[in-house]
Amino acid sequence: MREVFHQSLEDVQGRLVEIAELVTVAIDKATRAFGTSDVALAEEVIEADSIIDDKAIALDELAIEILARQQPVARDLRIVVSALRISASLERMGDIAEHIAQLTRMRFPERAIPKGLKSTFLQMGELDVEVSRKLTDLLRTEDLSLTDDIRNADDKIDDLHVSVFEKVLSDSWQGEASATVDATLASRYHERFADHAVSVAKKVAYLSTGDWTTSTDTIDVVAPA
Amino acid sequence: MREVFHQSLEDVQGRLVEIAELVTVAIDKATRAFGTSDVALAEEVIEADSIIDDKAIALDELAIEILARQQPVARDLRIVVSALRISASLERMGDIAEHIAQLTRMRFPERAIPKGLKSTFLQMGELDVEVSRKLTDLLRTEDLSLTDDIRNADDKIDDLHVSVFEKVLSDSWQGEASATVDATLASRYHERFADHAVSVAKKVAYLSTGDWTTSTDTIDVVAPA
Repeated sequence: MREVFHQSLEDVQGRLVEIAELVTVAIDKATRAFGTSDVALAEEVIEADSIIDDKAIALDELAIEILARQQPVARDLRIVVSALRISASLERMGDIAEHIAQLTRMRFPERAIPKGLKSTFLQMGELDVEVSRKLTDLLRTEDLSLTDDIRNADDKIDDLHVSVFEKVLSDSWQGEASATVDATLASRYHERFADHAVSVAKKVAYLSTGDWTTSTDTIDVVAPA
Repeated sequence: MREVFHQSLEDVQGRLVEIAELVTVAIDKATRAFGTSDVALAEEVIEADSIIDDKAIALDELAIEILARQQPVARDLRIVVSALRISASLERMGDIAEHIAQLTRMRFPERAIPKGLKSTFLQMGELDVEVSRKLTDLLRTEDLSLTDDIRNADDKIDDLHVSVFEKVLSDSWQGEASATVDATLASRYHERFADHAVSVAKKVAYLSTGDWTTSTDTIDVVAPA
């Protein structure tokens, strides 16, 4: 039974990695599409999101089947419950990549990135892709040092998020209301994507350390001061 | 054993209702504070959010304990897993109420509601409170007719969300960039709050119908067209 459980867990882990890889492809394409107004690339992201959703549902079904058949307790049980939570966060990260792609499609043939914020959003995009790659590696290797990398990248994204608000609220901001709306939404999406990654990383860290209570809070930069 | 499980489920249900009640208080206070620039009321919401977080964590612990001790299978197992998901959504709804309160606090002594959007946000706020009340009733009574009420209110909120974007993107919009940012964020928070409620309602409906696959999708209005 123990052997069967171990195999099931490896299956769960493999599927989480697979979903994280799809999320990484999605955020990479979405942020590149956003930066270059590439509507075909944006369409690919929008099209592919249902695959992530389906895989998350299938993983949840597997986790529930494991709970039912193998009745894990203690740490084993928490691993399976954590997998359910991680799958929900990854699914949401896929949704956010899709939102960035949708912004690109809605503005096309205009640029989705407002003037004066191009380099900021390129940086945010690259950091989100980095976060997603490291998260995939963390899920694959359980190398907890990656958690620090993810947090550090998230801190940088939070700073960039604040800088977007500073920019649009400064006297020098010439953007029309639509540019202000786009900057606000796009910045929030980029920031939330990394928040979810931090939240997943905490859950993985929890599985090693047993410190469950730290797993719900994310640092969520709400709005400009 | 069956009797013990039944009592445990009642405990879980009671706690979900309790958290939903706290969320209703939070969104009611947050939207009133937002409408009247009442920073003291906003502070109450911000202060109280950690109570919701703590209760959600305690509920998760109880659910895991039930899984470990009582090893439910089939529908019983799915009820417990659903409780974990519902708790996560309620916790997030509490966070969103807090975000609305934080917007109020950040703008104080200025009004957080941008000029020209007062009645729109008052309506959105009232609808969010209604959604939260109906959701609490749904969790308490399992009266699935409430699901339709929640969906209908969510549809109205989505329409208002779209109307906020139409307003700020219209030629008549006189708001500064800060008003545009506030309108964008506040509208998104109001809209997401109801989305989460719909998602919880679907999970409750699932528990009655067994249709699991409909439980992850939320209608998420991303941005203005």
